[in-house]
Amino acid sequence: MKEFFPEIQDGIPYGGPDSKNPLAFKYYEPNRVVGKKSMGDHLRFSVAYWHTFKGTGADPFGAGTFDRPWNRGKTPMGQAENTLRAAFEFCQKLGVSHYCFHDLDLAPEGETFSESCRNLEAMVKMAKQLQDDTGIKLLWGTANLFSHPRYAHGAATNPDAHVFSYAAAQVKNAMAATRELGGENYVFWGGREGYETLLNTDMKREQEQMARFFHMAVDYARQIGFEGQFLIEPKPKEPTKHQYDFDAATVLGFLGAYDLWDHFKLNIEANHATLAGHSFEHDLTLASMNGKLGSIDANAGDTLLGWDTDQFSTDPAICARAMLVVLAQGGLGKGGLNFDAKPRRGSFDPMDLFYAHISGMDAFARGLLTAHQIMEDGILDNFIKERYASYSEGMGKQIMSGDATFETLEKWIMEKGEPVRVSGRQEMLESIFMSYC
Amino acid sequence: MKEFFPEIQDGIPYGGPDSKNPLAFKYYEPNRVVGKKSMGDHLRFSVAYWHTFKGTGADPFGAGTFDRPWNRGKTPMGQAENTLRAAFEFCQKLGVSHYCFHDLDLAPEGETFSESCRNLEAMVKMAKQLQDDTGIKLLWGTANLFSHPRYAHGAATNPDAHVFSYAAAQVKNAMAATRELGGENYVFWGGREGYETLLNTDMKREQEQMARFFHMAVDYARQIGFEGQFLIEPKPKEPTKHQYDFDAATVLGFLGAYDLWDHFKLNIEANHATLAGHSFEHDLTLASMNGKLGSIDANAGDTLLGWDTDQFSTDPAICARAMLVVLAQGGLGKGGLNFDAKPRRGSFDPMDLFYAHISGMDAFARGLLTAHQIMEDGILDNFIKERYASYSEGMGKQIMSGDATFETLEKWIMEKGEPVRVSGRQEMLESIFMSYC
Amino acid sequence: MKEFFPEIQDGIPYGGPDSKNPLAFKYYEPNRVVGKKSMGDHLRFSVAYWHTFKGTGADPFGAGTFDRPWNRGKTPMGQAENTLRAAFEFCQKLGVSHYCFHDLDLAPEGETFSESCRNLEAMVKMAKQLQDDTGIKLLWGTANLFSHPRYAHGAATNPDAHVFSYAAAQVKNAMAATRELGGENYVFWGGREGYETLLNTDMKREQEQMARFFHMAVDYARQIGFEGQFLIEPKPKEPTKHQYDFDAATVLGFLGAYDLWDHFKLNIEANHATLAGHSFEHDLTLASMNGKLGSIDANAGDTLLGWDTDQFSTDPAICARAMLVVLAQGGLGKGGLNFDAKPRRGSFDPMDLFYAHISGMDAFARGLLTAHQIMEDGILDNFIKERYASYSEGMGKQIMSGDATFETLEKWIMEKGEPVRVSGRQEMLESIFMSYC
Amino acid sequence: MKEFFPEIQDGIPYGGPDSKNPLAFKYYEPNRVVGKKSMGDHLRFSVAYWHTFKGTGADPFGAGTFDRPWNRGKTPMGQAENTLRAAFEFCQKLGVSHYCFHDLDLAPEGETFSESCRNLEAMVKMAKQLQDDTGIKLLWGTANLFSHPRYAHGAATNPDAHVFSYAAAQVKNAMAATRELGGENYVFWGGREGYETLLNTDMKREQEQMARFFHMAVDYARQIGFEGQFLIEPKPKEPTKHQYDFDAATVLGFLGAYDLWDHFKLNIEANHATLAGHSFEHDLTLASMNGKLGSIDANAGDTLLGWDTDQFSTDPAICARAMLVVLAQGGLGKGGLNFDAKPRRGSFDPMDLFYAHISGMDAFARGLLTAHQIMEDGILDNFIKERYASYSEGMGKQIMSGDATFETLEKWIMEKGEPVRVSGRQEMLESIFMSYC
Repeated sequence: MKEFFPEIQDGIPYGGPDSKNPLAFKYYEPNRVVGKKSMGDHLRFSVAYWHTFKGTGADPFGAGTFDRPWNRGKTPMGQAENTLRAAFEFCQKLGVSHYCFHDLDLAPEGETFSESCRNLEAMVKMAKQLQDDTGIKLLWGTANLFSHPRYAHGAATNPDAHVFSYAAAQVKNAMAATRELGGENYVFWGGREGYETLLNTDMKREQEQMARFFHMAVDYARQIGFEGQFLIEPKPKEPTKHQYDFDAATVLGFLGAYDLWDHFKLNIEANHATLAGHSFEHDLTLASMNGKLGSIDANAGDTLLGWDTDQFSTDPAICARAMLVVLAQGGLGKGGLNFDAKPRRGSFDPMDLFYAHISGMDAFARGLLTAHQIMEDGILDNFIKERYASYSEGMGKQIMSGDATFETLEKWIMEKGEPVRVSGRQEMLESIFMSYC
Repeated sequence: MKEFFPEIQDGIPYGGPDSKNPLAFKYYEPNRVVGKKSMGDHLRFSVAYWHTFKGTGADPFGAGTFDRPWNRGKTPMGQAENTLRAAFEFCQKLGVSHYCFHDLDLAPEGETFSESCRNLEAMVKMAKQLQDDTGIKLLWGTANLFSHPRYAHGAATNPDAHVFSYAAAQVKNAMAATRELGGENYVFWGGREGYETLLNTDMKREQEQMARFFHMAVDYARQIGFEGQFLIEPKPKEPTKHQYDFDAATVLGFLGAYDLWDHFKLNIEANHATLAGHSFEHDLTLASMNGKLGSIDANAGDTLLGWDTDQFSTDPAICARAMLVVLAQGGLGKGGLNFDAKPRRGSFDPMDLFYAHISGMDAFARGLLTAHQIMEDGILDNFIKERYASYSEGMGKQIMSGDATFETLEKWIMEKGEPVRVSGRQEMLESIFMSYC
Repeated sequence: MKEFFPEIQDGIPYGGPDSKNPLAFKYYEPNRVVGKKSMGDHLRFSVAYWHTFKGTGADPFGAGTFDRPWNRGKTPMGQAENTLRAAFEFCQKLGVSHYCFHDLDLAPEGETFSESCRNLEAMVKMAKQLQDDTGIKLLWGTANLFSHPRYAHGAATNPDAHVFSYAAAQVKNAMAATRELGGENYVFWGGREGYETLLNTDMKREQEQMARFFHMAVDYARQIGFEGQFLIEPKPKEPTKHQYDFDAATVLGFLGAYDLWDHFKLNIEANHATLAGHSFEHDLTLASMNGKLGSIDANAGDTLLGWDTDQFSTDPAICARAMLVVLAQGGLGKGGLNFDAKPRRGSFDPMDLFYAHISGMDAFARGLLTAHQIMEDGILDNFIKERYASYSEGMGKQIMSGDATFETLEKWIMEKGEPVRVSGRQEMLESIFMSYC
Repeated sequence: MKEFFPEIQDGIPYGGPDSKNPLAFKYYEPNRVVGKKSMGDHLRFSVAYWHTFKGTGADPFGAGTFDRPWNRGKTPMGQAENTLRAAFEFCQKLGVSHYCFHDLDLAPEGETFSESCRNLEAMVKMAKQLQDDTGIKLLWGTANLFSHPRYAHGAATNPDAHVFSYAAAQVKNAMAATRELGGENYVFWGGREGYETLLNTDMKREQEQMARFFHMAVDYARQIGFEGQFLIEPKPKEPTKHQYDFDAATVLGFLGAYDLWDHFKLNIEANHATLAGHSFEHDLTLASMNGKLGSIDANAGDTLLGWDTDQFSTDPAICARAMLVVLAQGGLGKGGLNFDAKPRRGSFDPMDLFYAHISGMDAFARGLLTAHQIMEDGILDNFIKERYASYSEGMGKQIMSGDATFETLEKWIMEKGEPVRVSGRQEMLESIFMSYC
């Protein structure tokens, strides 16, 4: 059997913080216990099939540069099989526990819809075997409803019911494939669910179509007994100018408005949050405080550029802020940290995939250690608790219990006068936070 | 009685499109009938007290440049009275029907809370008289809960219940003033309702506090019989980095989540929409399609700059897109077009206030005429109707009625195969749209 | 001979401002005289070969949607010949006078460098014949030094001298082709001349390499007697994060620093200017006031999105501001207005190419008419002249002539005291400007 | 004598990396030797008078919150004296070696120009004494030519020669003050040198005026024997929309074009670089490779916000990248690291000034240690050297020496064919870099 990564024979070792070996982990030790769980169980890293195995390095100004050996098979299915083998070899050598895919990453689109279905079925069978052989698991599956020209004007939100139907049929099969492979989640990222111009768009109708689609998905999952978690992934600006799932707040509002709240959680991506003008930890916290943080696309954007750069995280402070949210909610449950990230176009050597993932895994491992220590020490948490203490007693308590009114509060202010001002101590807290990083 | 704008004696005349007189309207004729209403009734223009009469021209790098004669009274109350007279003189000479204020625009803050209340009461009395004398009406009132240092960490979302209470007392009085003056709306803009860093913030708790505050406001309005419309004004990024009312979608989600849906509509501002990454017409449409477009802050931002520049609109195409949304929902009801806009710092002459408002009024008047003609002709509307026709029959109808499932759709696709692709004709529609502008 | 645009038989007629026919011009009449020249001579419109004939509609999230009949030939050269025929048919039917190309738009890359050269030679021969047959001219040629994987780390700025040499050889042939076709300009857009990270980059050395490359180009042009104008096209952020030709100011500084000032002008693109944080008219003016505005890439960006959207201009006010700069410098000379623009991905019908170009041509024609009228009337120009009048006499004159010093000025201020402040009248001027649009 | 910071009695101690004391340094030890210099000599920290002592906490939406005891004197000069005492007390207790000021930070503007001059003289005398008493030095002085209304339309670039003259007189005195205090640099930041709209602006003329102003400054410095370094500080977008000193490249181009190259270096600010769309290290490197990096404004911006937030640096990786540039050029010479940064508006307690500066000093101290270690190890430097090795021999050497032409290179390529592609290894290098942080 051909090996695709012969340079790595014994996996990626742990080298420790002082190691300068770019093929060793500085912080990631999967079995090291942090709090009550192992690092591996905290982080549940996943490799993204599309970027890592199907990415080409193409950009709007140039052709692909990633000439992968596994994509050189004679037939589309031959390439798909090679790719799957490369994927499991990579995951095993890297030492990650999970992977994620779109239907069309795994299996090539056929001449007809039914050929596409057969292709997917065949690849799922092979993937199942490789999962059994290696112990690597499927974090989530999804359907690619954005690359094919038929979806140029949307999938569920397409003005043509024929395209809606095609998308429905495709999701049906992708969901079945996910269930078959024991996928723990199923993700909806509405790449083309949005619009370019209101001159040709009925936004209200399109959002109703989208809601219908989600309800059908819920019904189908119930019918086939799929027990994975449904996740919606917010994203603004790309590929349509106005994406309906702009950010976490928008998706939460949509779930509430269309009676879908109980069936979905969110898959928050760092780069999507920053594109929407929020910090990564903002969208994580907003999802989490609503009981809706299901999983994470663990990457980093470039805030000096205006698009989704999907880079590997390198900043341990940002990762620590993310892990603080995750630890505070007791972990990600069925979710995990999926590397929706790719090497730059000029890093076209397959070995760059290792360098890049090691970099990202170390950044989050370091972030986990930092976050854990911060929570253990409790300095930051206690500061916050004390800061809001006035709502736990007296008039503050009445405010929150609904017993106060504008009139009682006015009377109280007439008596008490001006409040004492208290510094928010942002710089002090940042300094303390950074001393942990 | 001192006149503050002696240069204008007979109001601003209508000069027509070919006029180059900067002190004449090119498009705005309040009594011209457009469709079934006069221009004046369509547009319901309002002057913003804070920018136009209390604005100083200060920016983060320099002192105020607007040395207004009406702000030269000997006492704070004397200045306030002069300002009020200047305001009504200006509105009358300009020919607008409405104005808007914050409590602290109208009346100076006193040494104590009760002195502040008395100041406001006195000014309201005087304003009522001037309204009666001139026929100029109050579009909306609001409370300034963001300028005073006590609100540095928020008003309703302040970590200190004492500050929450102060804000409540202040809104109580501002709402009473608004009712007293026949204000048609009451606006909530949460300038400091948001956070700078999660290191000192409990976001969940703060949003619950905000919801409590809104419920109290609803209760108080009911109690005093205030029948104006409550409006929330979304805004991102300023003055706190993470504003809780980021954009229309966020506010709608909040209203749904905290059982406030029935009591509030939105006041959409152009510059706030673009700061959030949306177009003006996007946030207008989103609000309108949810039955929630209550009023408009009619200004323009500079999308090459990253903050709220609050400029007067000059672009008739953008105004036409806005007026298309307004006409499609049958007008703004109790709402109007409030010029939340200011001359640049270097335009410090009081006459610049006339030039600027004329410019903005003409832009919207021209936009109204364009939008009306587009709707009359129906070309654009018909394009949209036909584009979605497939949902009105056959499988498309079943999809929307809930009769289709993933399984029936898959079966249908197996039979029907690939959809026919249809161009969205964006460039053609833009060309047609611009031919109306 | 196959016709590629059978829907258009008699060219695009002039329909006038009230026409709603999307296949008629509302403002563009090539023979209408404006000032001393015809509209056609003022505007010198050019079609961009890459977008219009070789564009695929692919974006980072999806495959091409533009299934052009002319790209269906059996061999690469067969496709190239079909495309060339389609291009001349399109330009003729649309009624534009010029076109622009990259070497690899015109002729396919061969297996070897010399095969690529032969391909280009053959296509140039055919193009020359079609130019003769139709009277359509080449505005400019250029070489594509950014799409091929060999240029992943730059062309002239590549760390490998082998790649530098390849780029040099390619430009030599592209320049020869441009000369052969009577191209009036030769453009350098350094798509990959920049860097992603300083961790692997020697910026000083790379800029020296770039200067060497330009000097070689100047020498080669002199040697072969190429008399076209050399143009550099500034652009920031794409495709490398830090482009060396960020904006007009940066390129002008580079030309000065590396002794290239006399040999180059600039090709200013609207969308590139806005991506750099400037307005279109800012970069036009900066180039023009330095005697360096050579040609224009006439498109529009979307300032709510963070990348080069290359849309067709629709805004007549922005076009008027551009044409004011062009008229003020007495026209573009050898340059022209090249539509570096493409229909959106969902506008995949070849007819959309007509709608889009008509829209852009009308926007600039309308802008020309507006700009001409503004200059004729002189209101705006006179305002500016008076505003700076103080430098034409007294102390102001001494300042500009170099006769004043800090000491004489201090003495003068001690005597004269505080200056009188004068409003900049921005809103009045905007209102007047818009009354022309 | 009143003490303004009684909470700090023995200065800020060094606590080491594990300390959680927010009033101790974790990394900054001024006397620790790093390479051949002490940390203090490497970093030459400076406190910014305007933010730290004159900042009010006002923002565009609210009044000042920083109620400083030293600003409570009875007369403007009394306040100025108190502030100066507070400044030296703060610098001493914090342990920084330098400070920076604008003329109007130090001394209040008088009723007349000559009174302003006398005020400045008096304060300079007092500052000189305090410098002598404490050993604290002046890093640079400058003049505030942007806050006063007279400068609303620019100082040197004002359309009125009277304002130009006023600015000249003011700079004359500020420069004399700087010389008197042994200031090592004099900074020009052209806050209002730019424009809002071309409708009222002659950009060419304004830039010529600016050049005249700089030439006068050079002449005056020569005349009075001022031997400090002249520095220009680039900044985009604020306070005028189009600032003439947009970024480092723009200023360098300007210096070259107007014969000012030999007399100026740059003062690069992190937040200004990112506002212009560059990274901090990009503008540092661009200045440095041109021999023009004179000094640094050491702060951090918020790239999710669109304005100059002037925050204290907390990110040690960004500081390390900056210090790599500084170390590579052998230090900053007469320059230093000036904290042009302020606590957030909600951090209004004077103690927050200590927390904030400690945070910034530690971030740069940590960055220095990292950068030093990286240079010692040479891994990253060697990677770059090898990457460009092909230009040191063979055809690459001929290219750089000017011996190669497009023709010789074409011949060579015909022979050598396609280059071998080499990965840029960005992710590997980032991983190595982060392992030092």
